[in-house]
Amino acid sequence: MAEKQTEISTLGEFGLIDKLTDGLSAVNDSTKLAVGDDAAILHYPETSEVLVTTDLLLENVHFDLTYVPLKHLGYKAAVVNFSDIYAMNGTPKQITVSLGISGRFTVEHIEELYAGIRLACESYGVDIVGGDTTASHQGLVISITCIGEAERGKAVRRSGAKDTDIICVSGDLGAAYMGLQLLEREKIAGAGNKDFTPDFAGKEYIIERQLKPEARRDVVAALAEHGVVPTAMMDVSDGLSSELMHICKASHTGCRIYQDRIPIDYQTAAMAEDLGISPLTAALNGGEDYELVFTVPLAAHETVNKIKGIKVIGYICKEDLGCALVLTNGEEVELKARGFNPLA
Amino acid sequence: MAEKQTEISTLGEFGLIDKLTDGLSAVNDSTKLAVGDDAAILHYPETSEVLVTTDLLLENVHFDLTYVPLKHLGYKAAVVNFSDIYAMNGTPKQITVSLGISGRFTVEHIEELYAGIRLACESYGVDIVGGDTTASHQGLVISITCIGEAERGKAVRRSGAKDTDIICVSGDLGAAYMGLQLLEREKIAGAGNKDFTPDFAGKEYIIERQLKPEARRDVVAALAEHGVVPTAMMDVSDGLSSELMHICKASHTGCRIYQDRIPIDYQTAAMAEDLGISPLTAALNGGEDYELVFTVPLAAHETVNKIKGIKVIGYICKEDLGCALVLTNGEEVELKARGFNPLA
Repeated sequence: MAEKQTEISTLGEFGLIDKLTDGLSAVNDSTKLAVGDDAAILHYPETSEVLVTTDLLLENVHFDLTYVPLKHLGYKAAVVNFSDIYAMNGTPKQITVSLGISGRFTVEHIEELYAGIRLACESYGVDIVGGDTTASHQGLVISITCIGEAERGKAVRRSGAKDTDIICVSGDLGAAYMGLQLLEREKIAGAGNKDFTPDFAGKEYIIERQLKPEARRDVVAALAEHGVVPTAMMDVSDGLSSELMHICKASHTGCRIYQDRIPIDYQTAAMAEDLGISPLTAALNGGEDYELVFTVPLAAHETVNKIKGIKVIGYICKEDLGCALVLTNGEEVELKARGFNPLA
Repeated sequence: MAEKQTEISTLGEFGLIDKLTDGLSAVNDSTKLAVGDDAAILHYPETSEVLVTTDLLLENVHFDLTYVPLKHLGYKAAVVNFSDIYAMNGTPKQITVSLGISGRFTVEHIEELYAGIRLACESYGVDIVGGDTTASHQGLVISITCIGEAERGKAVRRSGAKDTDIICVSGDLGAAYMGLQLLEREKIAGAGNKDFTPDFAGKEYIIERQLKPEARRDVVAALAEHGVVPTAMMDVSDGLSSELMHICKASHTGCRIYQDRIPIDYQTAAMAEDLGISPLTAALNGGEDYELVFTVPLAAHETVNKIKGIKVIGYICKEDLGCALVLTNGEEVELKARGFNPLA
């Protein structure tokens, strides 16, 4: 970057925090005291439940700054936490943001990152209420905790799926994974060549799905509007197969999903074929789509069918039947969780 | 270690989480759903406020595993978060625990760390309700968020100190810092010599203060029992000077504290003199004591004087008088925040 860069040591921890949180003002009634004390103070009404989720993102494990802009990274780091709250049928309300910052980052870099976090918070109506900021010896560390609100008794767990429930997903799957593959390919192609310009024409959708995912609050709102309460719900962060197996394990059920029902975007399929990957594999195991996968009682079938952007992909069955994908030719293949697992 | 060590990859992320959280059961009514879903579900009564604090601890920035046992580290990582909740006049109730684990750690190592976290939680009545576990390329990363409860309107902020309030601290100061200096000295002395045995005889107190601090719930309980509500409170994590300056800045006041009132343990003073450090400097700027510093109205002077383990060290004055330490000879020295600042 040619612009002026300021060393973080010139500000120190408290100076940096002041700069990053300057002008923040809380938008939620539940936020009584935000940043600046030993703890934030929240107040939720008796009729609400409080949801808590957290994510730890580490440089070169979860993100590669060679092709991820810092502002996008901040946006995504916040949104993936919001997604977990929506996946409980809740609404995200507050986050804390902890950052570990290594020596190569300047004040301007961290402002970029924080600008992305702030943009996500503004867009989703979430207050930044605290955090921690420290030096790191090796790379950027981002730890975000999100607090959300659900109507009492209305939070949707993984464990409520029942035999004969139908399985739905929002949007389409595999795009974020194919976006990642494309970015990785261009990174290798451009290595050592500073005049290299990656060509993303016609692939904007999969790039955006990887770099700037959105959480599906619209789906949660549409379900509420139509009076549908899912029996179980998760967001697709690790991959559809992995999430469905979590739901079935927690609910003591099995499931069947149909190959020809899995929603895959044209760009995802084209990119997968380009790279010699099965589009179905990308959709089942790709992860990071942040779509919602949920189950509803059979009686809600017609209602969910009417909601734009939701697709019925299969049904819940008894536990002893296991979890399987039904191929177009009618053959059944056992589902396996091959999703992203940084500890495998 | 001679004992059997298991590679983390043999379990994967979900297997490791299952192992670490095995047998956990919630002790608080406010915990409705703990680990195992997209988010935890909590419920707090209308009469409570919800407190949120978070800490990010990075290997070789905040801790050195050459001399910090993993179980102690886990215990301390949890307790420092509890301390922030007590410092708000609240009670810690839930934590989330995120871990970034680099390749040299085995399942047994992480079980040790987690055993310390679980011990702290049992001891303080706190439920582990979630977290994230991932690989790290950069050593051990520990991010803990703590949720606490305070009676509505009774949370104590930094900003409530008033002119003529008296300033109190619990316990004694500087011990944790001198414990750290001792551990660092013995690390250097023992480097490259595996038969070296550090000699901590007569220095157990300062070692314990560094390796296994406790949060002062007893002080919060004693104040409540005596009907004293502090006007402002913080825990001493960065150092007394730094915390007092935060209170004065947030409260728009100044302060005077007296050299001869600063509580310093004999072992702290002895170690400081041994290493050529002023005991007063250790007490003012040392940090990590996790004692409470708080202000109470002048009318509560006699009451707090009666509470064991609390010492009056000075008073709050008008902002334009600044923050100063009054030396034994009557001379005033301006307070400076020289506490631990990993970004300076």
